[in-house]
Amino acid sequence: MSDRHRVVVVGAGFGGLNATKALARADVDVTLINSTTHHLFQPLLYQVATGILSEGEIAPPVREIVKRQENVEVLLGQVTGIDVGKRTISANAPGGIDYQLPYDSLVVAAGASQSYFGNDHFAQHAPGMKSVDDALELRGRIFGAFEMAEIETDPAAIGRWLTFVVVGAGPTGVEMAGQIAELAHRTLPGQYRRIDPRQARVLLVDAVDTVLPTFGGRLSAQALRQLAKLGVEAKLGAKVVGVDEGGITVELAQGRERIDAATKIWAAGVAASPLARTLAEATGAEADRAGRIMVRPDCTVPGHPEIFVVGDMMSLDRLPGVAQVAIQTGRYAAATIRARVDGKPAPGPFAYHDKGSMATISRFSAVASTGKLQFTGFVGWLMWLAVHLMYLVGFKNRMSTVGHWFVSFLGRGRSERVTTTQQVVAREAIRHLGLLDTSIPAPEPSPVPASRP
Amino acid sequence: MSDRHRVVVVGAGFGGLNATKALARADVDVTLINSTTHHLFQPLLYQVATGILSEGEIAPPVREIVKRQENVEVLLGQVTGIDVGKRTISANAPGGIDYQLPYDSLVVAAGASQSYFGNDHFAQHAPGMKSVDDALELRGRIFGAFEMAEIETDPAAIGRWLTFVVVGAGPTGVEMAGQIAELAHRTLPGQYRRIDPRQARVLLVDAVDTVLPTFGGRLSAQALRQLAKLGVEAKLGAKVVGVDEGGITVELAQGRERIDAATKIWAAGVAASPLARTLAEATGAEADRAGRIMVRPDCTVPGHPEIFVVGDMMSLDRLPGVAQVAIQTGRYAAATIRARVDGKPAPGPFAYHDKGSMATISRFSAVASTGKLQFTGFVGWLMWLAVHLMYLVGFKNRMSTVGHWFVSFLGRGRSERVTTTQQVVAREAIRHLGLLDTSIPAPEPSPVPASRP
Repeated sequence: MSDRHRVVVVGAGFGGLNATKALARADVDVTLINSTTHHLFQPLLYQVATGILSEGEIAPPVREIVKRQENVEVLLGQVTGIDVGKRTISANAPGGIDYQLPYDSLVVAAGASQSYFGNDHFAQHAPGMKSVDDALELRGRIFGAFEMAEIETDPAAIGRWLTFVVVGAGPTGVEMAGQIAELAHRTLPGQYRRIDPRQARVLLVDAVDTVLPTFGGRLSAQALRQLAKLGVEAKLGAKVVGVDEGGITVELAQGRERIDAATKIWAAGVAASPLARTLAEATGAEADRAGRIMVRPDCTVPGHPEIFVVGDMMSLDRLPGVAQVAIQTGRYAAATIRARVDGKPAPGPFAYHDKGSMATISRFSAVASTGKLQFTGFVGWLMWLAVHLMYLVGFKNRMSTVGHWFVSFLGRGRSERVTTTQQVVAREAIRHLGLLDTSIPAPEPSPVPASRP
Repeated sequence: MSDRHRVVVVGAGFGGLNATKALARADVDVTLINSTTHHLFQPLLYQVATGILSEGEIAPPVREIVKRQENVEVLLGQVTGIDVGKRTISANAPGGIDYQLPYDSLVVAAGASQSYFGNDHFAQHAPGMKSVDDALELRGRIFGAFEMAEIETDPAAIGRWLTFVVVGAGPTGVEMAGQIAELAHRTLPGQYRRIDPRQARVLLVDAVDTVLPTFGGRLSAQALRQLAKLGVEAKLGAKVVGVDEGGITVELAQGRERIDAATKIWAAGVAASPLARTLAEATGAEADRAGRIMVRPDCTVPGHPEIFVVGDMMSLDRLPGVAQVAIQTGRYAAATIRARVDGKPAPGPFAYHDKGSMATISRFSAVASTGKLQFTGFVGWLMWLAVHLMYLVGFKNRMSTVGHWFVSFLGRGRSERVTTTQQVVAREAIRHLGLLDTSIPAPEPSPVPASRP
């Protein structure tokens, strides 16, 4: 090992990967540690769940992305501890191997997992949308529900299998609900003999009284109209108070309502990775309600200018948990480290450049806002297409993704509909035997084990 | 339900699917029942395992394939019993739903699973190559082994992680070994900092004294030379006597030898689906050593002209367990049923048209024989390419497969390298806790549960 400045980056999501790449020409050695072997393009997870894309298309290998960057090594591992005195992190890898890494600068970018707002028992019945595992689990449940409806003879059971509830009316929930509706109305009709997939009910549930609340009035209203046209029923002002195997219970102004539904999807809340707690304990830093570390204006932990927290784990200026914040804070942390190593003045406080936000409702229809400009319908969709292709990592993935979009948007097909037997067996074991706990199908572990000392 | 002749087809592999399609214009109602929702193009499983193709590309949904064939319904289910007196089959589906189907003609095409020749405990350490689950499990183990080698510091442990043993020198084993060698020598170099992937050892082990024994002397010798050029070590005349977590023990003429290897792959034997035993018990039919039902020359069960057995579950004229036999016997059964329903003379005894066999060794190199003609090298590979594209089901899959082949054969990439956390967790649970038995990662259940009354 050389005696260059050592940077350890924890997490290969948008934040960690962009920090790493921005250190390409810096005089430092970088170790990028991640709990999986892939970078995940989270904004397209819903397309894996609904059979449009393969998991490989949105999850390229981390080490392939940075292979030409000679000052980087990539290691598989979950970070289990941080010693801020000795400046080392501890990690473990799947084979039961423990290892330690020294750092001069540490960039913590372990992201967020789903939050059930204290109701973790909902997870088993309503998987989240945070990892490849989540998307494949939901793929199995969504396509499996139509299969089960075709077999059942009891009308109530058929109705339950054909009811899909998406909780959370932000972009993820809206896109998911839209794609399930397109499945039911465009892809699957003609493939069943006993049921009509067009009879499926798709509900979008949220406690707030509008969809896409962060997009503002006109776009929210437009999105709601488009969803209605697709057949999605928006149930707004509805607080989820119960989730079980057979359905969901919501609290509305006029009282409680039960919705029988076999498939529930949780796209509602996020909480910082459990690594945030480890970091808070090690540094004395404070966390906000979502468990995110409250950082200084330069994204460092108070009292520890050598430790940066970026992306979804960071609490700063009420910035939202979106890809652009992670990308920009990751690059900012790298620029600061580079300036310090070069003995140059560090950049000023982090300033977020809001490039806007967008969500697809269905094929050929999206809402997008950037600065004061707002776009809807086909123009919005073309913007969505361009931006997502631009940010997808790797030429190979762009090519095959375009192919699959061609199949799904110009045609009616969904090429990636496979469910593994392992998934079905695990689900059955949970349901009937109580053999497995939710640690298997539940959200992907962040780089720290769920149960820590 | 109409009062037309009812055909139940069990299994949507090459045999069952071709029987179903060949009944398109027959005056019958067909129910096609399968234990998964997909048809599986088994000959390309090794490309899913080695990161070239996505699982969706070789496993299209059964109901999509036959959606335009109006006399077919597709049901998800595992066949649990056959009542030859009442002419009904019993099945169950994942939600715990049991159902029965009446038949006038029954086509049993449940295929084969891996055989460990009485050593079923090998399965946990050496997964087979029969299902999507198998291929994804092996993908995780193969790419995971390089990750672990990069983390380890003990040279013996690194050597163990970088040793890959493929058991079985038939086409599946040869193709698998060749692709792992290409991974190590073409795709992965440059992506690691501590190890050199080119140091990986790939061994091909078999008790016979040649590779591809069914292809004949010249092609076997050519394949052996090509494998050696790729860096695959063929260990022939070596009987596997032990498989454990750390390696494999073989018996050679000169005595026993231990090979330390983290990754073991079983491509050696096949046994008929357990449904064959159910069928034998119900009908009194005899089974051969591999558990396959010995049928009459018209592929029917003795004493039951209404029950056909086709493909890998059938024992007839020492025909091999290959796709062409399944396709041709499936179509033959359909032709016989159609002739009977139409009151026409049934076709004569089944006659197999051997179209030849082929195996790829690496990109641009394959061996193929058809009739008296034999091809090797690039010409053999072009034939392999044409035949596999022709037999891949569906235009969409052909298009995206060509894209992925372009990436992998002209380039060096492997687009589909994702391992799920569920896989890693399941493997860890097996290794450390003994929590799960091999029923989760082991071969995909055939349409009958592994444990029957």
